[in-house]
Order: sequence, then structure tokens, then C-alpha cells
Amino acid sequence: MAIALEQARRAAEAGEVPVGAVVLDAAGQVVAQAHNRVEAPPDPSGHAEILALRAAAQVLGTPRLVNCDLVVTLEPCAMCAQAIAHARIRRLIFGAYDPKGGGVEHGPRIFTQPTCHHRPEVIGGVEETAASALLKNFFAARRQ
Amino acid sequence: MAIALEQARRAAEAGEVPVGAVVLDAAGQVVAQAHNRVEAPPDPSGHAEILALRAAAQVLGTPRLVNCDLVVTLEPCAMCAQAIAHARIRRLIFGAYDPKGGGVEHGPRIFTQPTCHHRPEVIGGVEETAASALLKNFFAARRQ
Repeated sequence: MAIALEQARRAAEAGEVPVGAVVLDAAGQVVAQAHNRVEAPPDPSGHAEILALRAAAQVLGTPRLVNCDLVVTLEPCAMCAQAIAHARIRRLIFGAYDPKGGGVEHGPRIFTQPTCHHRPEVIGGVEETAASALLKNFFAARRQ
Repeated sequence: MAIALEQARRAAEAGEVPVGAVVLDAAGQVVAQAHNRVEAPPDPSGHAEILALRAAAQVLGTPRLVNCDLVVTLEPCAMCAQAIAHARIRRLIFGAYDPKGGGVEHGPRIFTQPTCHHRPEVIGGVEETAASALLKNFFAARRQ
């Protein structure tokens, strides 16, 4: 989560919503890391999770990241949750809960749907205070 | 939809699940088109819709594809439906319904969720027979 938080800080510095993600292999080694990149280059799907999953797939040479874990600073949205299922991620660890946009513990609760064919183990609220402080500070600064 | 179906055929030729997508601007001109590319290069998020949205965002220089429409041969999954919402797509036109994996008219019904902040107009079942025949033939050939 420390690496994911550092990625989130880099996102904020780049003017992107501060969310960071890391993919770890079965041994706990970092395979890929990323932060939100929605504005530059413009990509409506450029959330940290999607970018980290894609980078990990390229490193490992397969779209099925079996036995890999994903650590992300914010509860994934429905897009990212379904991508995590497509990628067969073993365990999802996330930081802050997201009642407004989350898709794991809120809204569509993607992993509980009959159309979801892979359900990772989910651990939420890890380093929640640090993860949500980054987001609060970012949006407070943007409102000024 | 003819362009999307042609993209789906190209996917099948490349050994990918035959789904194709096109983004059109407000005047109905093609901005971007894509087909599934999950296996090569390996990308668990490499669905036709995601790739077409990303390409369109790069063409138009913004992640917000306001007044653009997306045409796709298969009902989008939850990942793609949420990406369509993130991209602010005006109208979604899809071909075959997907009771097993769809996220628009099935499963999480993403656009009905309180966590979904943009709801496109949705038209399903356009050229459904052609779109589903491509998928059926592809999976029948793979089972042989």
C-alpha cells in the first residue's frame, strides 16, 4: 500500500485524481504499478487499476493474472472491479471506501453479480486515512 | 453497425472473441473503431469498447466524449458500461444481448446504479442476428 500511496501522490502532482495501484505476484513482488491518467493522455478508462492490470499483463505475457494481487488506494469503480474479475486477480486490497462511485462494496457490488465469473478475496479499508486524505486535499485545492 | 460487425470479423480472424465497436461524433462521422484485443497484446481490459473509447479520446484530445455515440456488436459488460459512463457517451447502440456477461440489461445494470453519474440513451438488439451468429460460430469452432 505504501507504493500505491506514492503512486497516488504522483497522480496529484500531475493534476490527476490521486489514486494509485500496484499488482503483486504470488511471492509478493511488484509486477506493475500505475496511477490515474485520465487527462493526459486523454483516456476515459485511465484509472490506476486498469493501467496497472494492463502493464502487469504485458510483463507476465498473459491477460490472466492468476495468483496475482492488486493493491489500490481507493475502492474500485464498476469498470475497474469488472476488469479485476476479467484478470482473475486473487486478492484485492483497497484503501478508502467510495460510497459515491465504488463498485465493490457500493452500487453494483460487481463481485456479487451472477454475470461476474471470478470473485477475488477483498480486503477494504487498509491505510484508509492516508488514502482518503490525499483525495480530500486534492479536491479541496481544486475548489479554491 | 456494419463497421462494428466488420471489426468483429477481424477479431475472429485474429483469434479474439468477435466483438467490434465504433465511436461516432455528433455528425455521425467515425472517430475511432476497434475490436477485442485481450490475448495479443495481453490486456484483461482489451474489450472493443475500451479500445474504441481510448482511441476516440486521443483523436478528440479529451476523455469526455460528449455528443459521441458508441456502436458495439455485443451488450457491454460492466467494465465497458462504466467506461461508457465515464466517457459521457450520448447514445449506446448494441447488437446481441448478453445474459451471461452483460452489464447494461443484465447483471449489475450499470446505468441504473446510484454510483453511475452519466446515463446514455441505450438501444439494444440492432443487427442482433448477425452479431450473435459471429459469436456462436467462433465458439463452436473453438470447441471442435
